[in-house]
Order: sequence, then C-alpha cells, then structure tokens
Amino acid sequence: MSELALRAEKLDAADELAAVRERFVLDEVVYLDGNSLGALPAAVPGRVDDVVRRQWGSLRIRSWDESGWWTAPERIGDRIAPLVGAAAGQIVVGDSTSVNVFKALVGAVRLARPAGESRDEIVVDATTFPTDGYIAESAARLTGCTLRPVTPGQVPGVLSDRTAAVLLNHVDYRTGRLHDLPSLTAAVHAVGAVSVWDLCHSAGALPVGLDEHGVDLAVGCTYKYLNGGPGSPAYLYVRRDLQDRFDSPLPGWNSHAEPFGMRPDYEPAPGALRGRVGTPDILSMLALEAALDVWDGVPVEAVRAKSLALTDFFLECVEEYVAAGLVESLTPVAHEERGSQVALRCADAGDVMKRLIERGVVGDFRHPDVLRFGFTPLYVSFAEVERAARVLGETVAG
Amino acid sequence: MSELALRAEKLDAADELAAVRERFVLDEVVYLDGNSLGALPAAVPGRVDDVVRRQWGSLRIRSWDESGWWTAPERIGDRIAPLVGAAAGQIVVGDSTSVNVFKALVGAVRLARPAGESRDEIVVDATTFPTDGYIAESAARLTGCTLRPVTPGQVPGVLSDRTAAVLLNHVDYRTGRLHDLPSLTAAVHAVGAVSVWDLCHSAGALPVGLDEHGVDLAVGCTYKYLNGGPGSPAYLYVRRDLQDRFDSPLPGWNSHAEPFGMRPDYEPAPGALRGRVGTPDILSMLALEAALDVWDGVPVEAVRAKSLALTDFFLECVEEYVAAGLVESLTPVAHEERGSQVALRCADAGDVMKRLIERGVVGDFRHPDVLRFGFTPLYVSFAEVERAARVLGETVAG
Repeated sequence: MSELALRAEKLDAADELAAVRERFVLDEVVYLDGNSLGALPAAVPGRVDDVVRRQWGSLRIRSWDESGWWTAPERIGDRIAPLVGAAAGQIVVGDSTSVNVFKALVGAVRLARPAGESRDEIVVDATTFPTDGYIAESAARLTGCTLRPVTPGQVPGVLSDRTAAVLLNHVDYRTGRLHDLPSLTAAVHAVGAVSVWDLCHSAGALPVGLDEHGVDLAVGCTYKYLNGGPGSPAYLYVRRDLQDRFDSPLPGWNSHAEPFGMRPDYEPAPGALRGRVGTPDILSMLALEAALDVWDGVPVEAVRAKSLALTDFFLECVEEYVAAGLVESLTPVAHEERGSQVALRCADAGDVMKRLIERGVVGDFRHPDVLRFGFTPLYVSFAEVERAARVLGETVAG
Repeated sequence: MSELALRAEKLDAADELAAVRERFVLDEVVYLDGNSLGALPAAVPGRVDDVVRRQWGSLRIRSWDESGWWTAPERIGDRIAPLVGAAAGQIVVGDSTSVNVFKALVGAVRLARPAGESRDEIVVDATTFPTDGYIAESAARLTGCTLRPVTPGQVPGVLSDRTAAVLLNHVDYRTGRLHDLPSLTAAVHAVGAVSVWDLCHSAGALPVGLDEHGVDLAVGCTYKYLNGGPGSPAYLYVRRDLQDRFDSPLPGWNSHAEPFGMRPDYEPAPGALRGRVGTPDILSMLALEAALDVWDGVPVEAVRAKSLALTDFFLECVEEYVAAGLVESLTPVAHEERGSQVALRCADAGDVMKRLIERGVVGDFRHPDVLRFGFTPLYVSFAEVERAARVLGETVAG
C-alpha cells in the first residue's frame, strides 16, 4: 500500500462525518460530481413512494392540508436556513434557480429605488454560470437598467451611486474559487446598492452566513450539495427587514395574502411568502424535504473542515500521481478562496473525463478544457480521493 | 333501483371509455375534483420509483443523457400537443402556470411591437383565475403597458390598435363556462394583437384546436385533466411561425442555442426550446410523462362526448334529487358554452362541501358560495354521477 493510501486510511478512520455516508445510496463508483447532482439519500425513495401512493393516490386534494403540501415551500425553506446561516422565516423553496435570480434581481432594483432614485446599473459577475448573466440582462432590460459585467475582483471599482443591484456567485462554477461574500456585500452596501448572491456552489459545502453578513437577497439550487434530486426546486432568501418592501415581478396567487380568497386585486403576503409564485411541484419538493434529513446533527463547520481536507488531499495526490505538466489546477490554493471542488485544466479534457468515468471515477467536463471534481463531505471518503487521483494519473499518462 | 340509477347503469354499459378507468388508482370515493388534482394513474408509482432508485440513485448524472432527462421538456410537450390540437415542436413543459403566463404575456407584447409600435394595452379576463390577472399586471408594468380587465364578452368591444396582447381563460375556473376560442382569437387578430390562452381547465377535457384556430401563445397546467400529479409542471405553446421572434423574459441557460457552451452571450435556441428556462424538475416531470400513458388510444373527441353526457346527466340528477331552490347552476346549459365541470351556487357552500366529503363525494368549494364538481371522463362513471347528486340532495336537505 502506498504512503498516500495509508494516509487516506488514517484520515477516514479519524473522520467524524464518516458515518453520514451510510445515509446515502452509493456503490463502487467514486462519485465526484455531487456539485452537479448530489447522490441519492437513502430516505428519499420510500418517502417519495408514500407521497405518490398515499398522499396523492389516496388522500388526493386533502393532502394540500393534511399532508402539508401547501406550506411545503416555507417549511422546507426553514430546513435550508441553518445551512446558509439564516434565521427561520426568510427562505421559500420553489421554481428554478434562473426564475429565482429573476425575482431577486428585479426585486433588488426596486428595493434600490425606494423613492424613484435614478440608479440604473446592474453589476454582474462576468465569469458566473451563464444563466445568471442571461437573466440579469433580461432584468436590466425590463427595469430600464444597463448591465455591467465585470470580474468579482473588479466589482468594488465599478460600484457607484448609479449601481442598483449586484449579482455575484459565491463560488465560481468553473474554477471553484470562493469569493469574499462579507467584504463584497459591505462594498455594495457602501454605495447604497442591493446585493444578490447565488449560492448554488456553496450552500451545503461551507458556511455562508447570510444573516451575519447582512446579505440582502440570495438564491440557490438544491440538487448539488443539498442532494434534493434532479431539478429539485431552488430557493429565495429575502432578509427579514426587506420583506415588506420586496416587490416580486412574479406575483402569482401563491404569494397573495389570501390565496384562496380568489380576489381580483393583488395584495402580497407578509414575510418570505411573497417569494412564492405558482402551485409548488410537490413530488420534487417533498423528495428534497426527505433529502434534507441527512443533515440531522451535522454542523456546517464540520462539513467545511472535511471539504478543505478532501480538496487539500486531492491536490496532494494529484501532485504525486499525475506526471508534471499534464494538468494545471485552476482552484485557489488558499483555503479562504476555495470552494468544495477542484478544477484541473487538461488537454483533451472531454475525452479524459470519458475515460475516467469508464474507470469508475465520475467528475464532469466543462467547456473547453476543464476537468471538474466536486467533493461532497457527507459521502466522499479520503480513500476515494486517493483512488480518483491515482486513476487520473494513469488516464492522462496514456 | 331508481329510474336514474338504472339509466346510469345503461350509460356505463355503453361507455366506450369505461375501460380507461382501470388505468387509474381509485377507491369507493366519488372523486369529482379532477379539475383541481387529477387522480393517480396506475403507471406512475412504478415509474417514479425507477426514476428515483435507478435513474437518480444509480446512473446519477449519466441520466441527463441516458435516461432522457435533458430532452424531457420538449418530448413531453409533444405528448401533450395532440391533446390540445397542436402539431409537434410547439410545446415545452416546465415551470408553473404563473411563470408561463409571464413568459407568454411579455413575449406577446414584444411580438405585437415588432418595429416599436406604440401598442400599450394588455386586455385580461377580469373573471379569470386570479393568478393570471396578477401576473398580467406585472407584465404590463414591466413592458410599459396598461392593463384592461374586462369580461370575455366585453373583449371584442375594447380591442383597438392600442391592444398589444389579450389573455383569456378557455374555461372559467369558477362557473365552468367555455369561451369561444375561435371567434375571440379571430377578433384579437383583426386588430393586430397577440392572443394568449390559458388552457388549465380545458386541456384534456375537450378539443382545443390550437393550430386550427391560429392561437398565438397558450399555457396550461398538467395536474388537472392531465393527471400529472400535485404541482406537476405547466407548459407553454408558441405557434411555429412565431417561434423565431418569440423573445422570452426568462432566458435561462436551458433556452440557449448551445446550453453547454457556457457562453457569456445569450443566443436563443431555435423552435419551442426557447420557452425553457432553468433545469427541469425531473421527478415531477417524469411522473407527468408516465401519467400521459393513460391517453393511449383515447381520442379527445370521445372524451368531450362523455364529458357532456356526464355533466348533462349530473344536472338532470340534481334537478331530480335536490329540492327546488336550494342550489342554482352557474354552468351554462348550452353545450358549446360548457366545460367539464358544474358549479352550483348554494347557501353555506363551504359547510355543505365538508359534509359531502365526509360522505364520500369529493368536489371543492370556491369562495364565497360555489360548490364545484369536475367530471373527468377518463375515470368518472355515470353511476358515480347519480350517487353524487343523490348525496348532494340529502346533504342540502338536512
């Protein structure tokens, strides 16, 4: 056994989260794509079957009350809240991330213009996952703003009294770089603008501290580190003191103060509920609720510590197993700048990833030349990390 | 056995759709709320279990290709298309009805102003399900339009060269009145405006004829007569010749011409795909796909014939069993003005519905005084209709 394999064994033996792995359905594959689609929590199949057969099949419409369907968006939002550092009553679940980015950004521009101010710029991370940029362009067009795409590092320099809203990703989907949420949020606030954070690649992998850092609005998906299942609903955070001024561009009947009053005039519900839109997709939503059970007794701080240990160890193994010059890490070395993934630039990355998958190591390929490996601390072991790097070394060598 | 019970027996014996009932999970309850949440198709639980355990649990991200997840929105759209009289390639499934109303209405206003025309009014059915009005108000605000809420009968009188878009419900959710889609669409076109139809209460219950009548845009839910399950995703129809000018206000990455190119600039996909937004909610979506199997070999025309026979028979039974003056039908007598539900005005309607449900007859209550009974021809029998009216008569009498 190699020295690194021995090290892996010791790290796994000392891992306080090791037992959490039993809460998932896993196999012999080394699954390093939980940052794209989290693995299946073992509690989900039975719960979904009950939702389908009993709640839908037998109780039918009675389930809107009796099975808690109607209140699922806010109830599940409160389950996500502690994972992102939010007190209860500020998150609702529903719709896709893209739709939530739209709600948040148009809402942010309106919050930034309480008395008709002329703020007319939306600043967006130019290196972000593209949907955020596309939706930001649409939000700018519909609110009469100009879009300013810049890198996160350039953000402080372009902020001004013209800035209405700033949309940033907490962790870059491609490189895995973690941006400085506290200081960027403070810079946005210093010019009187409103911050919107996309937590897709950080929630469930590291502490976010939404309340602590005074974030205004945030969105995120639930199918990556939150393991909610393919296309499970996203969520919207609206800080408590902004809720009564939050003015959604998608005021569906679910966000009405009296949804079953069927009143012709719109009156927004109090609190986070005004982030709801239409009828919630119950099957996907209750699968997510069951998936969140894996977090019982798991502190986000322990997850972060293991995440950094996993990515540190992976980088060390890559250094050892991959011949010099064949891959180049795009992921920052400094812990305070690293999310829970490692991105390696590599020639023929698409083909290399195909061969890795054939050999039981699953990451993903991001155009044009990036191998992306996500490390979910709840179910990835150090032994798997060692094996992944070893197989990578053999694969790129020939 | 009463004369009406004997009639019901004969009608059931002659019902060519009677065997379709076997495709659903039903019990001794008379379920007349399929216009709110359709009953569970028998094929769904097994299919959902396979999606969860095998496609998600075992194949994981490989399912985006191998299990057809990525193409589900357009593939399932093509399954719905024949039910609403649309050729393939014009419908995508995803998001809630409210979100699709928003896409359609903003898109309609933009279609109506190809060269910056000054059309600045959105006409909306004032009696419609409220979410349509709330979303229309938001679409008007974001596109610089004025909202004109009128009754469907008043629509022709308010159309002008200022009209940009007209949003109408095909069947009124409260009264069950069927509006004249062909003539209203023609009137909208006569002034150069764009029509948006909400098919929530007609799709799956009667022929819609989207292509035949030249409808521009349409939306609908899938959890009523299409039996897709609680909150199953809605759909958007964009007529083929309008697709390359359809300009969605929600241009998420799923609607990009090259979604995995991760390009900073947005370029819309060709065809109906540009109605997509974010990552599709696969569990809810594939439950819907399984649910659509119940339509195999079922012509919509046969469904419509049985629907009218069911509602005719119900009205006749109510006339016979309910003492005069205790209920009043709000549903039109003329077949060409009737959807697939019957709405009865009744004192203490909320309490009456509670007692009906206790006695195994499930309809729903709509504020302030309406008992609503939906008739799903795929699984409601004439014997159940007779029983429902009989129990109603006993309930309101005492």
